[in-house]
Amino acid sequence: VKQDVAPPPEQPKEVAAQTEVIAPHKDLNQAPVPLKMERVGEHEVNVEMTAQITDIEIDKGKSYKAWTFNGEAPGPLVVVNEGDTINFTLKNMDPSIPHSMDFHAVHASPSKSFIDVMPNESGTFTYKASNPGVFMYHCGTKPVLAHIANGMHGVIIVKPKNGYPTDNQIDKEFVIVQNEWYKYNDLDDMTNGVPSQVVFSTKALKEGQPNTNGDTYSLKEKPLLAKVGDRIRIYVNNVGPNEVSSFHVVGTVFDDVYIDGNPANHYKGMQTVMLPASGGAVVEFTVVEEGSYSIVTHQFNHVQKGAAAIIKVTKD
Amino acid sequence: VKQDVAPPPEQPKEVAAQTEVIAPHKDLNQAPVPLKMERVGEHEVNVEMTAQITDIEIDKGKSYKAWTFNGEAPGPLVVVNEGDTINFTLKNMDPSIPHSMDFHAVHASPSKSFIDVMPNESGTFTYKASNPGVFMYHCGTKPVLAHIANGMHGVIIVKPKNGYPTDNQIDKEFVIVQNEWYKYNDLDDMTNGVPSQVVFSTKALKEGQPNTNGDTYSLKEKPLLAKVGDRIRIYVNNVGPNEVSSFHVVGTVFDDVYIDGNPANHYKGMQTVMLPASGGAVVEFTVVEEGSYSIVTHQFNHVQKGAAAIIKVTKD
Amino acid sequence: VKQDVAPPPEQPKEVAAQTEVIAPHKDLNQAPVPLKMERVGEHEVNVEMTAQITDIEIDKGKSYKAWTFNGEAPGPLVVVNEGDTINFTLKNMDPSIPHSMDFHAVHASPSKSFIDVMPNESGTFTYKASNPGVFMYHCGTKPVLAHIANGMHGVIIVKPKNGYPTDNQIDKEFVIVQNEWYKYNDLDDMTNGVPSQVVFSTKALKEGQPNTNGDTYSLKEKPLLAKVGDRIRIYVNNVGPNEVSSFHVVGTVFDDVYIDGNPANHYKGMQTVMLPASGGAVVEFTVVEEGSYSIVTHQFNHVQKGAAAIIKVTKD
Ligand SMILES: [Cu+2]
Ligand SMILES: [Cu+2]
Ligand SMILES: [Cu+2]
Ligand SMILES: [Cu+2]
Ligand SMILES: [Cu+2]
Ligand SMILES: [Cu+2]
Ligand code: NA
Ligand code: NA
Ligand code: NA
Ligand code: NA
Ligand code: NA
Ligand code: NA
Ligand SMILES: [Zn+2]
Ligand SMILES: [Zn+2]
Ligand SMILES: [Zn+2]
Ligand SMILES: [Zn+2]
Ligand SMILES: [Zn+2]
Ligand SMILES: [Zn+2]
Ligand SMILES: [Zn+2]
Ligand SMILES: [Zn+2]
Ligand SMILES: [Zn+2]
Repeated sequence: VKQDVAPPPEQPKEVAAQTEVIAPHKDLNQAPVPLKMERVGEHEVNVEMTAQITDIEIDKGKSYKAWTFNGEAPGPLVVVNEGDTINFTLKNMDPSIPHSMDFHAVHASPSKSFIDVMPNESGTFTYKASNPGVFMYHCGTKPVLAHIANGMHGVIIVKPKNGYPTDNQIDKEFVIVQNEWYKYNDLDDMTNGVPSQVVFSTKALKEGQPNTNGDTYSLKEKPLLAKVGDRIRIYVNNVGPNEVSSFHVVGTVFDDVYIDGNPANHYKGMQTVMLPASGGAVVEFTVVEEGSYSIVTHQFNHVQKGAAAIIKVTKD
Repeated sequence: VKQDVAPPPEQPKEVAAQTEVIAPHKDLNQAPVPLKMERVGEHEVNVEMTAQITDIEIDKGKSYKAWTFNGEAPGPLVVVNEGDTINFTLKNMDPSIPHSMDFHAVHASPSKSFIDVMPNESGTFTYKASNPGVFMYHCGTKPVLAHIANGMHGVIIVKPKNGYPTDNQIDKEFVIVQNEWYKYNDLDDMTNGVPSQVVFSTKALKEGQPNTNGDTYSLKEKPLLAKVGDRIRIYVNNVGPNEVSSFHVVGTVFDDVYIDGNPANHYKGMQTVMLPASGGAVVEFTVVEEGSYSIVTHQFNHVQKGAAAIIKVTKD
Repeated sequence: VKQDVAPPPEQPKEVAAQTEVIAPHKDLNQAPVPLKMERVGEHEVNVEMTAQITDIEIDKGKSYKAWTFNGEAPGPLVVVNEGDTINFTLKNMDPSIPHSMDFHAVHASPSKSFIDVMPNESGTFTYKASNPGVFMYHCGTKPVLAHIANGMHGVIIVKPKNGYPTDNQIDKEFVIVQNEWYKYNDLDDMTNGVPSQVVFSTKALKEGQPNTNGDTYSLKEKPLLAKVGDRIRIYVNNVGPNEVSSFHVVGTVFDDVYIDGNPANHYKGMQTVMLPASGGAVVEFTVVEEGSYSIVTHQFNHVQKGAAAIIKVTKD
C-alpha cells in the first residue's frame, strides 16, 4: 500500500508524516459513479460497480481520501434474491492500484472470481447467491487490511426465498453498517493501533431513504425516522476491519434476531447482538413511545469515537 | 467529565496527574444507601435507587472513588417478573453531576424515561419489563463511557413467566458480573487504553448470600460455596464498558445455556460463552467432585488483571 | 514465569532484553515425544502426554523456545468418544517449571485433577468426557497466561455418540487451530500488548494428513487439499490466549455450523463464526470450483499478522 509514496519535496517533514496519500491519488477526487443493477432473468441480475478514489468527510471537518466502491464508504447496498446468479462487473477507475470484489454472499473460487482488476480496466465474474442473509462485501486485494480500512467494504442482502417468519409484523426497515477508520492509509496503525473513529452508516433500501457514508455525525444530525408503535427491522453488518461489535438499541429489546440474516438462526429477546468482524444480523423491535432511540455498539469506547446513530420516533 | 477539575494548588504536578477526582467529590465518601424495592401489585413494583459517590476497594490497597448506584459497583441486583411494570425513582446524591438510569430490560423512550436527574434531585419513571433475561443497567448520562467505567452499572434479572425448562434440576444459584476498571476517571485511558483491572463480582439473590463489589480479590479469598453433585446456575452479565467476555468455568461444561437469559435461546454443552459488552446469559453445570472451580473469562490477559472467581465445592 | 532468569553475563544488555528464556531452558531443545493413546475398554482410553521445551519456527526465520505438549504448539490432537473415561498421564520433562493439564472436555475437580506436575515427575488423572464437541486443552499452571501464550494449548475432539445430522454429506475433514504469539515469554506484552503473530495450524485427524505448528507460513506454502465439489468439515478452536476470532472461509458460506461442536447447537448459512477465546465449532461448506480458498479470522489486523491458511481445490 505504501508503494509509490512520493511526498512532495516542498512539504515540511511533519506534514508529510501525517499523510500517506499514494502519489497518483494526490489530486484525485472522483465523482461517485452510481451502482448499476439490472434484473436480466427471473433468477439472474447484472451488477456493475466502480472502484474509485473519492473524498469522504468521516468526522466534522476531517476529509479522508477513501478507496471506495462507487464513491461511497461503505459502498452502495446491493440487494438480490436467494438463488440469483450475479453477473458482476468491476470497473477500476483507480489509476494506480488494482482492486477486486469478494462477496460473502456467493459460492465462488476466490483465485478465479475474486481476482484483481488492474487500473483502468474492468473484469466480469459470475457466481451464485445460494444463502439468504446480510453479507459483507469488500475489496480482496492485498494487503486486504489496507483496502478494507481505506473504505472498500459494503453490504449485500440476499432476500430469503420464503421470507422471514416475522415479515408481516414489520413497519419500517433500515440498513445499518458499522466500520472503523484509522490514521490515513497507515498500515501500521491499522495493524497495531486502535481505531481513530468507529462509525455507523445507513444505506437506502428504497428511493427516498437516507444513504450516508460511515461518519461520526450524519445519523446524529439527521436521525432515522419512525412512528410510535412501529415494528422496526434493521439489517446490520459489522464490516470492521478489526473490531467486533456489541450491537444494541437503547430503550428496547430485540424481540426477534436472525444471526447473519438467515431465517433458521432465530433468537428471541436479546438486549445485544454479538457481531464478529464481517458478521451480520436482522434485528426486530418495537418503539413504544415518542423520543430518540440510540443505536450503539455497547463497547462504549467505540461510542466515544463516534459509534452512535439515532432513530427519532414521532406520533404522526 | 473533566469539568470542574480543580487540582488543589499545594499538590505537586505528579500527584495531580495521577488523580482526576472531580473537585466536589474530593472529600466525599457517601455511605451506601440501600436499594428500596416493594411489590405494589401483582404485576407492579416500586424500585428506588440512589446515585452516590462512594469509595470502593477495587484491588488490594487500591481505593477508587466510584460513581455508583447505592454505594456498590456494580450496583445492587434488581429482580422482577416478566411483564412487571416498574415505577422507578432515582435519587441523585451526587452534588455535582447529573446521573440517570438505562435498564436494558424495559421498553421506554430514552429521551423521556432515561433522562438526567440533576444533583440533589430525584426523578421517577415508569416502564415495563416485557422480556425475560439477565439484563444490564447503567447510567446513561454523557459521556456514558465515563459513567459506566467509573462504576455506574449493574444487573436486572427478569424472571421468565414460565421459568426455564431446567428449573427443577437446579440446586444453587449465583449472580456473576464482569466489569473493567481504568485509570481513575481518565476518559482518554477509558477510550484508548487497556483495562487496569478486569474483575468479577457476585450479587446476593437472597439474604445470606455474598454480595461484593467488582474487585480482584473478594471472590478468591471468600469463594462461592457449593456441594458435590450440585447443579449450579449462574446468571451472568458482562457490563464492560469496553471488553467482550469469554465466560468459562474450569472443570466443567455448561450443559445448558440460555443466551441473554431468554428460555428460547437454548444452547447445549458449551465450554465457553461469548458475551458481548452488556450481554448476559444463564449457564448451568454440575460440579462432580470436591475442590476449587475457577470462574474466568478465557481471555487470559484479563485473568492476569483479576478476572477470576472461585467456587469451592465440599462434600457436606 | 520470570523466576530464575539469569542472563549470561557476557551478553550485552540489548540482547538480554530481547529474550527472557528461563535459564534452565537456555540449552534445551527437546525432541518431540509422540503422544501415546490406547483404547483399553469400550468406553475407556489411556492418554499420555509430555510437557517439554522445544524450538518452534513461528515465523520465517523466527524460532520460539516454546513450552509445549509433545514438542508441538498447539499440542497433538486428541480424539475420544462421548462418554469415554480418560486415564491421563502427564510426564513433565521440563527441568525447571511445573506444568499441568486442563481439558475443557471433561468434568473434573480442577484442584485435584488439573494440578501441577513437578519437573521430571509425572502425574495420572482420571476423568470423563461427557459432552461432545471441539474443546480446548491447555496447561493450567500459574501464571496460566504465560503457559498458554508460550505454547501449551491444543484441541481435544469428543465425537458425538449419535454423530452429526450432516455426517453423511462430508467428503473431507480438517482440524484448524488459531493461536497468538507474543514477545518471547514476556508476561507484560502478553498482558497489555497486542499479538506479534496470529496464526493457524492444522492437526492430523488420520495418518497422512498434514500436522503443523502455529506459524505464519506452513498452511500458505503447503495448502490443505480438496477436490471440486467436496463437502468440507472443519473442526476449529481458537485457543487464544487473548483474542476472539471471526472465523471465515473466503469464497463460500458455512451451510452448517455446530457451536462448540455440539450437534444440538445447529446454525445454518453463516458467513463468519464468532469464536470466544477457547471457543470451538464444527463448520461445513462446499467448494464449487478449482482454486485457492483462504481460511481467515476476519479481524484483518490478525490476517496481517499471519492468520491465513489456504485450501487448494483441484479437479482430480
Ligand atoms: Cu481495492
Ligand atoms: Cu471477507
Ligand atoms: Cu452517572
Ligand atoms: Cu446500555
Ligand atoms: Cu506449563
Ligand atoms: Cu481453560
Ligand atoms: Na488510530
Ligand atoms: Na465495536
Ligand atoms: Na488502563
Ligand atoms: Na474479557
Ligand atoms: Na506483541
Ligand atoms: Na482474531
Ligand atoms: Zn481493495
Ligand atoms: Zn419488545
Ligand atoms: Zn424462528
Ligand atoms: Zn452516570
Ligand atoms: Zn455436564
Ligand atoms: Zn430448550
Ligand atoms: Zn503450563
Ligand atoms: Zn453453500
Ligand atoms: Zn440440527
